[in-house]
Parts: sequence; C-alpha cells; structure tokens
Amino acid sequence: MSKITPGKTDTVRAVAWAGDHVRLLDQRQLPDKTEYLEFHEAGTLARAITDMVVRGAPAIGITAAYGVVLAAREAFKTAPEQWREKIEQDLALLAQARPTAVNLKWALDRMRGKFSAITGDPEPVLLAEAMAIHEEDIAANKHMAMLGAELVQGASRVLTHCNTGSLATGGYGTALGVIRTVYAQGLLQMVYVGETRPWLQGARLTAWELLQDEIPVTLIADSAASHLLQKGSVDWIIVGADRIAANGDVANKIGTYALAVSARHHNVRFMVVAPTSTFDLSTKSGADIPIEYRAADEIVQIAGKPIAPRQVETWNPAFDITPAEMIDVIVTEKGVVHRPDRDKIAALFA
Amino acid sequence: MSKITPGKTDTVRAVAWAGDHVRLLDQRQLPDKTEYLEFHEAGTLARAITDMVVRGAPAIGITAAYGVVLAAREAFKTAPEQWREKIEQDLALLAQARPTAVNLKWALDRMRGKFSAITGDPEPVLLAEAMAIHEEDIAANKHMAMLGAELVQGASRVLTHCNTGSLATGGYGTALGVIRTVYAQGLLQMVYVGETRPWLQGARLTAWELLQDEIPVTLIADSAASHLLQKGSVDWIIVGADRIAANGDVANKIGTYALAVSARHHNVRFMVVAPTSTFDLSTKSGADIPIEYRAADEIVQIAGKPIAPRQVETWNPAFDITPAEMIDVIVTEKGVVHRPDRDKIAALFA
Repeated sequence: MSKITPGKTDTVRAVAWAGDHVRLLDQRQLPDKTEYLEFHEAGTLARAITDMVVRGAPAIGITAAYGVVLAAREAFKTAPEQWREKIEQDLALLAQARPTAVNLKWALDRMRGKFSAITGDPEPVLLAEAMAIHEEDIAANKHMAMLGAELVQGASRVLTHCNTGSLATGGYGTALGVIRTVYAQGLLQMVYVGETRPWLQGARLTAWELLQDEIPVTLIADSAASHLLQKGSVDWIIVGADRIAANGDVANKIGTYALAVSARHHNVRFMVVAPTSTFDLSTKSGADIPIEYRAADEIVQIAGKPIAPRQVETWNPAFDITPAEMIDVIVTEKGVVHRPDRDKIAALFA
Repeated sequence: MSKITPGKTDTVRAVAWAGDHVRLLDQRQLPDKTEYLEFHEAGTLARAITDMVVRGAPAIGITAAYGVVLAAREAFKTAPEQWREKIEQDLALLAQARPTAVNLKWALDRMRGKFSAITGDPEPVLLAEAMAIHEEDIAANKHMAMLGAELVQGASRVLTHCNTGSLATGGYGTALGVIRTVYAQGLLQMVYVGETRPWLQGARLTAWELLQDEIPVTLIADSAASHLLQKGSVDWIIVGADRIAANGDVANKIGTYALAVSARHHNVRFMVVAPTSTFDLSTKSGADIPIEYRAADEIVQIAGKPIAPRQVETWNPAFDITPAEMIDVIVTEKGVVHRPDRDKIAALFA
C-alpha cells in the first residue's frame, strides 16, 4: 500500500492494492477531505467507478484490473472449478461502469488474457498482472512527461483542463506529468487550469495537486479560457484523453473541444498526452466513440446546494470529441505523433 | 411599485421605485429565495450594485438613475442651496459601483443633464426623469425584441449566455426579449443557456425566467456549448452587451467571446441585442473598455461552500471583448446593424 507524503502529490495514489483489498481515495470529497474507501467486492468497486469515487481514464483502467482480482477471488471461492464462468457477471459490471474511457475495456481484456493459462487459485497471477498494469502506467507517464516536455521550448505558460495528474492515473500524470516535468526543468511560468464544470476536477483536484507540489497555478472559469488566449497569455494547451480513435480523434472531458477551437483561432499549440492504452483502433473516428451523458444533478446542484431550478432540463455530456486535424501533437509512451492522422497512428502501433 | 404576477417574469421588476425608496430584487438569492431589499440612500445603493444585488447593464443604469433621486433628496435636505455640490460625492460612488457597463455612466449623465434647469426641490423632476429612463428601457426592449425576432427565420434553436431578461433590464429583456418574441411567434424550438460561471446567471436567473414563462429551456455547462454547436444543434447565438465601442466591439459577460469564436468556427449566426444606452462612442474599440476583475471568492466557493483550495490564485474577469468582425448583427431600438463597423455605428447615431 502506498503511503502519502504531504506536499508530494506524485506519490499520492488514487488507487492502490492494500494487502487484500482495493483502496480508493474518494475524489468526490477533495479538496475538503482526504478519505479512503475500501473495496472487497468487484460489484461495489464497479459502482464506485460509476459514481466517480475514482476517475481519470488510466486510473479507471487500473481500478478495473484490481477489480478483476476481487472478482476472481470471489468466483474461485464459490466455484473453484467454474470460476471462469462465475466471474463473467462481475466483468460485465466492471465493463459497463463507464462507457467512454477505453482504458477500462483495455485493462479488462488484458486481465482476461491471463485466464486460460491459470491453474488453481487465480488470485496470485491476476494480482501480479494488475500490479504490472499499475506500474507500467506510472512508467508510461514518466516517459511521456519527458517526451512532452521536450516539445515545450523556452519559458512557457500552459493551460490545462480537468485533472490528468496522480489522481487520474497510476501516479504522476499524463498532461500534468508533462507540466510537472516542464516545471522541473525551470521552464514553466504558469499553469492556468479551467475549473472544469460540472464536476470541477480542475478546481478541486488539479489546483490541489499543483499547490501541493508548489507549481504556480491560476484557476479560471472554463469560459474565460478564450479571453486568456485572446490576450496572448497561453503558449500551449496540454490535455489528456479518455479514448483516441484510429484516425486520431480524441474524446476527452467536456470543454476540451472548446479549447481546441479556441487554440486554432488564436494559433496556440494543442498537445494531447495519453498512454497507448487510451487508443481504440476499433473505433474508426470520434463519431464512433460513445459519449457518456450524466445526470442533471451535476449541473443543477453543487455539493447538495441547488444552483438552478430543480425542474430545468439539462444536457450534460461528460466528454466531447476533438477532431485529429485540430491537434498539433499526441504524446504516448511509444512516441510522439505530430499532426495525427490514421496512417501515423497505425505506424505507432505497427 | 410593480406587482409580481407568478408565472409571468416579464412583469418581474429587478428594480422599482417604491413610493419613497428604491426596491431591488436580491438576485444573489435567486432562484432559492425571492427577497426584496429597500434602499433609502445612494451610498448603500451603490454598494448593492457593486455586490450584484442588481446586475445587468440596463438594470444597473436604471438603478443608478433612481440612486440620483435618493442622493438629491439627501443633498437638498442637508443643503437646500448647495445640493448640486453636495450630491457629487454620491454621484461618484454610483459611477464607480461597476466599471464595465456604460449604461451606468449614461444614466448618470442623463440625470445630471436635468440639474441646471431645476429650481427648488430637485426630487420631483429627477424622479420623473428616472422613471422615464426606466419606461424607455422597457419600450426599447420590446422594440428590439420585434426587430431581432424578424431576423430569426423559421423554427430555430437558440443559445444564450448570462441573463438578459426582465432581471437584467427595466423589464422584458434584450437578448431574452428577442427570444421571448420568437417563442410568441411559435418559432422557438429550444433555448440552450450556459450556466454562466462564475456567478451562474444562466443557471440561477435565465433558467428561472424561462421556466416561469414556460419557454423550453435546456441548461448546459458553459464549456459544453462548442460540442453543442459541433453537433449542429444551434441556429443562433443571441446575447446582450455591457458596453459597445464606436467600432462595434462588444464587452459582455465572460464567456461571450468563447461563444463567438465557436460560432465563427461552426458557421452559427451571432446576434447582440442592446439599447443605444449601451454604446460608448468615446471608446474607439474594445481595447479601450475597462474590464472588471472580481474577487477569487466567486471562483473558489459556491454559496459559501469551498470548491477549490482557498489559497489558489484566480483570474476572474467579469467580461470579455468580442470583436465587431465576429458579430453578424447588433440589434438596437434605433435599428439593426448588420456586420457592424465604425461607419455603420456612426450612421446609427447620426
């Protein structure tokens, strides 16, 4: 189990295997409270993913991998000979927990790939695989951080969106990993972060992570970003991704596309940072990526306090699609793709 | 004093003269509570403008006009012969209450224009002038509503921002006045409204006004607007203005510029609706319009509930500037200006 070192959020773990169960930092409570929840069953863990106890595409994938360990243990206990059949119900629950982030499906597929070779108790083998997924994600983050930071030349002001840091990944971060590394190189003048309505990941999580690490951060309303670009105050927009299609279209937190449109208008560079587990080559383009629509509650109330008439209709997509042609570069742990398109992405996976 | 008819917000009055004092609907409490505050002194009224008890450029102008009545009464009581000198301190307080909306200065200048001809008690003359300003604003709204609605051809889906309705004006509304009239003509399919962070005028005020009048409304996060445009779900963006420069550049609620950028990218028409009292021909372009920056509190908490680390830096401009060349049409009570520029606006005032 990871320990938390105050002031060093790159060692905070959103998800951890804690001896015999999964431990999640309850991100719904941040930055008010640092509260951990324990999960001994895959079903309740799937529910926690849906309810956003944990969020961020890579962190969801890792959580689901650990969920398979819990599911296998339970299945093996109740039906040692038929655990592979017995586990399917829990795998389905995990798979359906959230629809857009493909890392979830990727992790489940990878865990499932171990099933056939297992003899006897599946837990040790599956736990080792889940831990490998977790460790590889952190290693991928650190490698992407280096690759992404190389692209940022000279003293820079960066705008980011949502949370792509330790809290969204196995640790360190995707877009925020690049930003951490630019800072470590002494080149970061300021990180602007949009508060990221409706769930406020920018305000609650990213501002908190950056303050912990004493990285200069300025919080803005999402709708102020275009005005900031208009004033010439941003050199790079750096974001993560929840799913990347075969042609390079990127599904990411709602508001990402608005930033891409504005970046194009103001000639500001736009970088997406995501591990290859975020790519879904079976989706041809962004049009094929399922977008999760969430409940009105997220819009009409904040922390239980009503901020709009309760009976109002809402339209609350959790993600949007940024077309590949609006992206300057996608950074992965396998390398960097400038001006992404179908051929370049195929080459990355070749 | 205006009466409130439930379900008919075009008769709700954000500001009213109530016999011998000014009555403001406390918009900070909406939609939770409908609470009115009474003002007998110009100083406290100026403070209420700063604190956004009342907001919306035209409503601020009307409030300031009534504030001059209160100031004159007080000045005349303490110094019947020198009330014109005595009143200056209160006029300065009112003028400085908020920097961006020019209707405030416009109303004060118009009230001041009455001073020289007054003999004896200034209150009756000034009250008549303030009431004329108020009534003319409502009449202007209704005329603009007709002119703007004529531009909207066929069944339409409209996106608006902030609040430009009865609550922002003398009554009826600017952009929302056009939308009401399009609805009355049976051509309105849907009004989408951005919640308008940080102050949530869209969520708290516009959604409330439209629901009261049973006009179909869907509330969205501000950052979802571009995705909505990407899906082809919006025909017109219709917004108000806080100040319009001589060249047609428009200062309006933060987030307006982001919508204009997105409208341009998606080929969606962009209409600004504002009375001529919103024009400031002494500002050559948007670059000369002072932008109000507001406190971090608006970003880091909602209704007293912290939503971000308290110590985080914020950048909180209340307004942004939309360049004239990104606007399809400005609708005023004096007529409609397509593709606004300096010459066309000069012609409007000729």
